[in-house]
Amino acid sequence: MAYFTDINKINFEGAKSINPYAFKYYNPEEVVGGKTMEEYLRFAVAYWHTFTMDGSDPFGAGTMVRPWDKYSGMDLAKARVEAAFELFEKLGVPYFCFHDVDIAPEGNTLRETNKNLDTIVAMIKDYMKDSKTKLLWNTANNFTHPRFIHGAASSSSADIFAFSAAKVKKGLEIGKELGGENYVFWGGREGYETLLNTDMKLELDNLGRFFHMAVDYAKEIGFDAQFLIEPKPKEPTTHQYDFDVATGYAFLQRYDLQDHFKFNIEANHATLAGHTFEHELHYARVNGMLGSVDANQGDPLLGWDTDEFPTDLYSTTLAMYEILKNGGLGKGGLNFDAKVRRGSFEPEDLFHAHIAGMDSFAAGLKVAQKLLDDKVLEDVVENRYKSYTEGIGQEIVNGTTDFRKLEEHVLDKTEFKHQSGRLEQIKATINQYLLQTFADQ
Amino acid sequence: MAYFTDINKINFEGAKSINPYAFKYYNPEEVVGGKTMEEYLRFAVAYWHTFTMDGSDPFGAGTMVRPWDKYSGMDLAKARVEAAFELFEKLGVPYFCFHDVDIAPEGNTLRETNKNLDTIVAMIKDYMKDSKTKLLWNTANNFTHPRFIHGAASSSSADIFAFSAAKVKKGLEIGKELGGENYVFWGGREGYETLLNTDMKLELDNLGRFFHMAVDYAKEIGFDAQFLIEPKPKEPTTHQYDFDVATGYAFLQRYDLQDHFKFNIEANHATLAGHTFEHELHYARVNGMLGSVDANQGDPLLGWDTDEFPTDLYSTTLAMYEILKNGGLGKGGLNFDAKVRRGSFEPEDLFHAHIAGMDSFAAGLKVAQKLLDDKVLEDVVENRYKSYTEGIGQEIVNGTTDFRKLEEHVLDKTEFKHQSGRLEQIKATINQYLLQTFADQ
Amino acid sequence: MAYFTDINKINFEGAKSINPYAFKYYNPEEVVGGKTMEEYLRFAVAYWHTFTMDGSDPFGAGTMVRPWDKYSGMDLAKARVEAAFELFEKLGVPYFCFHDVDIAPEGNTLRETNKNLDTIVAMIKDYMKDSKTKLLWNTANNFTHPRFIHGAASSSSADIFAFSAAKVKKGLEIGKELGGENYVFWGGREGYETLLNTDMKLELDNLGRFFHMAVDYAKEIGFDAQFLIEPKPKEPTTHQYDFDVATGYAFLQRYDLQDHFKFNIEANHATLAGHTFEHELHYARVNGMLGSVDANQGDPLLGWDTDEFPTDLYSTTLAMYEILKNGGLGKGGLNFDAKVRRGSFEPEDLFHAHIAGMDSFAAGLKVAQKLLDDKVLEDVVENRYKSYTEGIGQEIVNGTTDFRKLEEHVLDKTEFKHQSGRLEQIKATINQYLLQTFADQ
Amino acid sequence: MAYFTDINKINFEGAKSINPYAFKYYNPEEVVGGKTMEEYLRFAVAYWHTFTMDGSDPFGAGTMVRPWDKYSGMDLAKARVEAAFELFEKLGVPYFCFHDVDIAPEGNTLRETNKNLDTIVAMIKDYMKDSKTKLLWNTANNFTHPRFIHGAASSSSADIFAFSAAKVKKGLEIGKELGGENYVFWGGREGYETLLNTDMKLELDNLGRFFHMAVDYAKEIGFDAQFLIEPKPKEPTTHQYDFDVATGYAFLQRYDLQDHFKFNIEANHATLAGHTFEHELHYARVNGMLGSVDANQGDPLLGWDTDEFPTDLYSTTLAMYEILKNGGLGKGGLNFDAKVRRGSFEPEDLFHAHIAGMDSFAAGLKVAQKLLDDKVLEDVVENRYKSYTEGIGQEIVNGTTDFRKLEEHVLDKTEFKHQSGRLEQIKATINQYLLQTFADQ
Ligand SMILES: [Co+2]
Ligand SMILES: [Co+2]
Ligand SMILES: [Co+2]
Ligand SMILES: [Co+2]
Ligand SMILES: [Co+2]
Ligand SMILES: [Co+2]
Ligand SMILES: [Co+2]
Ligand SMILES: [Co+2]
Repeated sequence: MAYFTDINKINFEGAKSINPYAFKYYNPEEVVGGKTMEEYLRFAVAYWHTFTMDGSDPFGAGTMVRPWDKYSGMDLAKARVEAAFELFEKLGVPYFCFHDVDIAPEGNTLRETNKNLDTIVAMIKDYMKDSKTKLLWNTANNFTHPRFIHGAASSSSADIFAFSAAKVKKGLEIGKELGGENYVFWGGREGYETLLNTDMKLELDNLGRFFHMAVDYAKEIGFDAQFLIEPKPKEPTTHQYDFDVATGYAFLQRYDLQDHFKFNIEANHATLAGHTFEHELHYARVNGMLGSVDANQGDPLLGWDTDEFPTDLYSTTLAMYEILKNGGLGKGGLNFDAKVRRGSFEPEDLFHAHIAGMDSFAAGLKVAQKLLDDKVLEDVVENRYKSYTEGIGQEIVNGTTDFRKLEEHVLDKTEFKHQSGRLEQIKATINQYLLQTFADQ
Repeated sequence: MAYFTDINKINFEGAKSINPYAFKYYNPEEVVGGKTMEEYLRFAVAYWHTFTMDGSDPFGAGTMVRPWDKYSGMDLAKARVEAAFELFEKLGVPYFCFHDVDIAPEGNTLRETNKNLDTIVAMIKDYMKDSKTKLLWNTANNFTHPRFIHGAASSSSADIFAFSAAKVKKGLEIGKELGGENYVFWGGREGYETLLNTDMKLELDNLGRFFHMAVDYAKEIGFDAQFLIEPKPKEPTTHQYDFDVATGYAFLQRYDLQDHFKFNIEANHATLAGHTFEHELHYARVNGMLGSVDANQGDPLLGWDTDEFPTDLYSTTLAMYEILKNGGLGKGGLNFDAKVRRGSFEPEDLFHAHIAGMDSFAAGLKVAQKLLDDKVLEDVVENRYKSYTEGIGQEIVNGTTDFRKLEEHVLDKTEFKHQSGRLEQIKATINQYLLQTFADQ
Repeated sequence: MAYFTDINKINFEGAKSINPYAFKYYNPEEVVGGKTMEEYLRFAVAYWHTFTMDGSDPFGAGTMVRPWDKYSGMDLAKARVEAAFELFEKLGVPYFCFHDVDIAPEGNTLRETNKNLDTIVAMIKDYMKDSKTKLLWNTANNFTHPRFIHGAASSSSADIFAFSAAKVKKGLEIGKELGGENYVFWGGREGYETLLNTDMKLELDNLGRFFHMAVDYAKEIGFDAQFLIEPKPKEPTTHQYDFDVATGYAFLQRYDLQDHFKFNIEANHATLAGHTFEHELHYARVNGMLGSVDANQGDPLLGWDTDEFPTDLYSTTLAMYEILKNGGLGKGGLNFDAKVRRGSFEPEDLFHAHIAGMDSFAAGLKVAQKLLDDKVLEDVVENRYKSYTEGIGQEIVNGTTDFRKLEEHVLDKTEFKHQSGRLEQIKATINQYLLQTFADQ
Repeated sequence: MAYFTDINKINFEGAKSINPYAFKYYNPEEVVGGKTMEEYLRFAVAYWHTFTMDGSDPFGAGTMVRPWDKYSGMDLAKARVEAAFELFEKLGVPYFCFHDVDIAPEGNTLRETNKNLDTIVAMIKDYMKDSKTKLLWNTANNFTHPRFIHGAASSSSADIFAFSAAKVKKGLEIGKELGGENYVFWGGREGYETLLNTDMKLELDNLGRFFHMAVDYAKEIGFDAQFLIEPKPKEPTTHQYDFDVATGYAFLQRYDLQDHFKFNIEANHATLAGHTFEHELHYARVNGMLGSVDANQGDPLLGWDTDEFPTDLYSTTLAMYEILKNGGLGKGGLNFDAKVRRGSFEPEDLFHAHIAGMDSFAAGLKVAQKLLDDKVLEDVVENRYKSYTEGIGQEIVNGTTDFRKLEEHVLDKTEFKHQSGRLEQIKATINQYLLQTFADQ
């Protein structure tokens, strides 16, 4: 059955198109930097925001009007699968992502829930046979149900730790079944509301134990997905244990998990943590920990996770710059963990929003590649740090000096040369690249 | 004497130019929306950031290297005037702005200070004869000197109130002498460090009295500049009385000053107050209070006033949109209350920075005009609110209804039509305008 | 029927009590500053957080377990009334507050909704006869239902403006019926998600028209409650029109409504707007606009409205200081617009939370009164501003001076006396008062 | 020579004292939890804020009036030593801390600077013989001088790396000479202004190399101080590499430095990073990395480092709770990295401020010890996590289970018990302890 009957396949029509149902910048077959846009961008639709969200917020009820609203229970779950693959096809996205609870209703016991999951997973697998859309990653929603009131793997209740483990076990099995390329852990309620009643040491130790068990089980069943931690600083808890990439990296090293995990970096979570999106990508990249991306954006003036569709071209350009420098995302992709605004309540807004996001990243990719082609930033960096390629600088980098020799080098030195950082000129150049990349075509 | 000897007049070379000392988008003679760019943009150089700032910050000493550093006292003041008009000329900016202390050193008494000012004002007036650069506004720096430790017009000391008044008196005289088109009041230390030792009522009343005296004196001497309040929420004080435009507007109405003042809106102050730049412009505009603009930008992740040169094209586009809707800025202009970064310490960075800012606003102007030409946002708004042009909506707007009639209209109504807000599509369209405006040329 | 069967009336047992179900500081009959605590504090229970909230958040389902959960529809509404008056009695609170939707379910039409309301209002009125708990204020919830998707009085749809008016009309009638002492307007969705599709001028004008119609209707039916606007800067909208007290005050003056309204100030909304709670109270007070208080607190590190029960003794002390300086709150009171944490899901937590809040304000009242008795802060202020009581200062205050005379006063002056603000010492003194007030007893 | 001639030794007079020059809560000889207050609190005066700061801020010149202002150069340096030991003595503080540039002026070369340092260090050593005040830590100021424009150990210039190394080399020698118990690294400009011109990988690698060389040199000269990193998220740079404790911990593990460093945790830096002070202490503690404390506080509504003297009793109580749980701070202490407000410009404010801070921590210590004596929070935690002491919980903790067994445990389970987190009651209890600790005496 078709759900978006008024909407046809979204095609690339180019920058002059005034058709709202066309891509202006995303041309899947266009080659940029040696790969097609489709290969580089690896877009994924987030099942939750697109097929289960209703537009409710802390001060208001759902506003979304969806053609599958008439169904309930397993019928609703099945209708959503149908709608999902219709949308995947019409948008031409190569990937999708989901939580367990997004695709099937929970039963009275986990056994029943798993049975529901099995039914839908089989249906999805069936649909995937006729579709080119693959599973970027799945995950377990261990935060919505009241049982996770005090956390999941970091719950104060051992039974809930066990329940969480069982859900991740099933998630790994589903990931294997559907050929998922990654498996994500977002610590929805892994954190604390207040330190006053919290045993942080036990909770962190338990998280470490939990992740090791997950690694072991994936190995046992032969599921070779890339494991990803998705940091977030706060919300819903007051403090989330995976505050940002650096905090997650400290944890992974502390519990000897750094070889088994990379990071899934969300733009809005970065800014909530006080970082730019590109900072988090860059920090993960230079530490070899950049796995995948939740492609959205926040409102810098709002203190909560707005999960907006990404449209800021500065942000998409600098994100793609990091991704290009990383040689792409490997198994990872650009997952639209983004929701249409509560006021954009019509089904067609789902298309407008994805088109906006895909075009924004496509444009960003092209600008980033042009910056790289012309070595704009690379030349700046090379020139700025060239003192480390010779003399005392080279000795520093080679590890062949010490405090005594360094002191000797400067003890009577009276002149030090400095270079301007030229930030204003660099920003002007980036503007010129942004505006000119498309003018040149 | 020339100070920027390596730099020639900055000319417009167009978007393909790779000359860092050329405008890519700012073409002063280009007509946009019926006026030349120069007429619309009314750029001003801020004397303080460009000629007196040394790059110091709370954790570091000055880094700036300036060709006039060898001078001191009145010689330094004079050298800065020379350098200023050289830079004005080379950049081709039509306006400049200054605080009293920017242009002349303070003496041991106010009488001596005023004498110093007279000398430099005469010199500036002389330079202005041969220059097309005019005075957008001047102001009194009533915050740097230790005497303003507890405020100026809101000081806990009546002597300091008097001193502040005398400085503004002189400022008004200077403004008249130099043909200033506006006079600005930024309440540098008009606020409090703590409520615990503050008589807010007396301080606000005194501020009201001070402004009335200023209005009276300007009238007395026949100085018909537009008076402007520049809001800022905090820094240096914990709470500044002119927190944002709305707070300033409440104050002006409370003290019956609303006919004598408009607002000088700074982008970075807007964001520090929790608003977008365009919000402050819009709110001032629809209340008839938009006077002038301090054109800079902040870093959304930093909690202090970074006063960066404006390069965000979204921000310049939406700012110019508001200014175009306002029919321009009247006597106001776009003053670069912006400083080169501490790391951009060379004199040429002053040029790079102004070029970056001027090009960014020029590009923003063109995109904004194109949005207006095509009525992109105006059509959205017209369509969204059309229910107020007929029936019950018209009665609401005309004031011909009441709660009883309105209740009657809905008491048994079961269906209400809603329109999607279409935010995602609108944002995609703005991106397309941003990228396409220059591609079309 | 009884709902909190395990809990008896909460009595004052004093500071040494270890009974969690007793007041340690709130002794309703204790006289402080000439009135009983009960008279000064005028506590109110918020119906919504206490009887209808389920603990859901944007990332999780409801956790609350309530003895009335077994009911639905009008039966649930009635059960909540029973539970409410049981809790009011057991806590001994003199007031309560509610939104229309808190007390009765909505029908298919407004007429049906109003019928439901009539039934429950009659029941409440009946209960009030045997109770000493009175109605502090009621209000219309014009934000939760999807129909308010684009606002209420500032909706882009005239029909929704009408619907909102009809709901407030009913609210005023209910307020009159139940003897409400105030009527509150919190602009839940009166604001915008984005300026890009918003006609702010029309929306503000419509808000002005709406408030005038409300004033007229209250007058028509002889309902003489104090009208109150409750400011909030953001959430759920990106920008709420009543950002803070100053913004609301600008609006009221602009639309000539300042004589008909005061402000209901919420602590958490103050901090979200970048102000302290005491700042908002103080600013309202010195402008004669302090009406009532939503007594809660936020988490300074979280960017959303957490609506925590107030326990910060610094905040309750300084709030009570402002209220005492205001001569009390008049018709206003201290409404606990506060919710138990999602993890505090048991019915007894409702009692713990109210006890915590009531004790915190009672302690704050006592410390504040002691500060006033000893003129601690008043002496600081009197001493700091004494230059305005004589000479040039007196002339400034009396309006008998001008810029010329003020200049004369300082033109040759070389010495200016300054006083230390002594902030550190003042803070130490407040700590001493906080710790000593109860030690002295 | 005496500088604070009007001020005598500050003695403990108890909570009822109204003498501003007396301790109300800090009684150095009082035994709390088995040690004297003096032993537990290990207060230190920060040389920079107390003897060199002038009250300037980004918008204003210095306001401080100091009796040693008449001197300059080495005479000023010597006068400050005299004043320092007079203040140490009068306050009775057991420790002090300094940067190299605080104690001696810089020369034209590092050799000259070091000579100046040698002179003053000898003088300090001499004073220390007759004083009981010891050196808690010293550090190198590698951020104020313009040469550190682009960082120190992370500078883009190898010469500056060398210069920074030489300064730390001297710092280690001075630390050894004066018996310093710790050596601190605060990365003043170790971070970036913009990623656009930054080679973060090289900068982080260089930081790692730098720290290893420092460890090696300290070992070489037999200086066995505890090395401490002081995290800060931003300011002066846009992003500081030691953002918070977790980020620093990730870095230390990545570069194999975790056995050589602990953290010096500053309260204001914690809150700027989005954490509570107690969070940072707790996280460091449970990871065995809690070294020392910079005892100050920030303003939660301001986005920069205000470095206020600590007076918030909630904060001092929870900080001391962590420190008591840590078994004290070992070699570390409580350094008042705090400055009197710009408006508190008189020398006596230095005393008021230190008294305020010392009393606040003394009071916090007593409340924290009472909470521990009564096992208030420990009982809460023990009860909350008791499911991990038996059955499946014990197996989780012991590492004797796996995902299969855990799934089995829950697959058919329908009931899960949850406990309320009781946050509101816990907060009320803490208030009661705060108010009652001193009433009981
Ligand atoms: Co995400
Ligand atoms: Co998110
Ligand atoms: Co400005
Ligand atoms: Co500014
Ligand atoms: Co409220
Ligand atoms: Co609230
Ligand atoms: Co510090
Ligand atoms: Co600090």
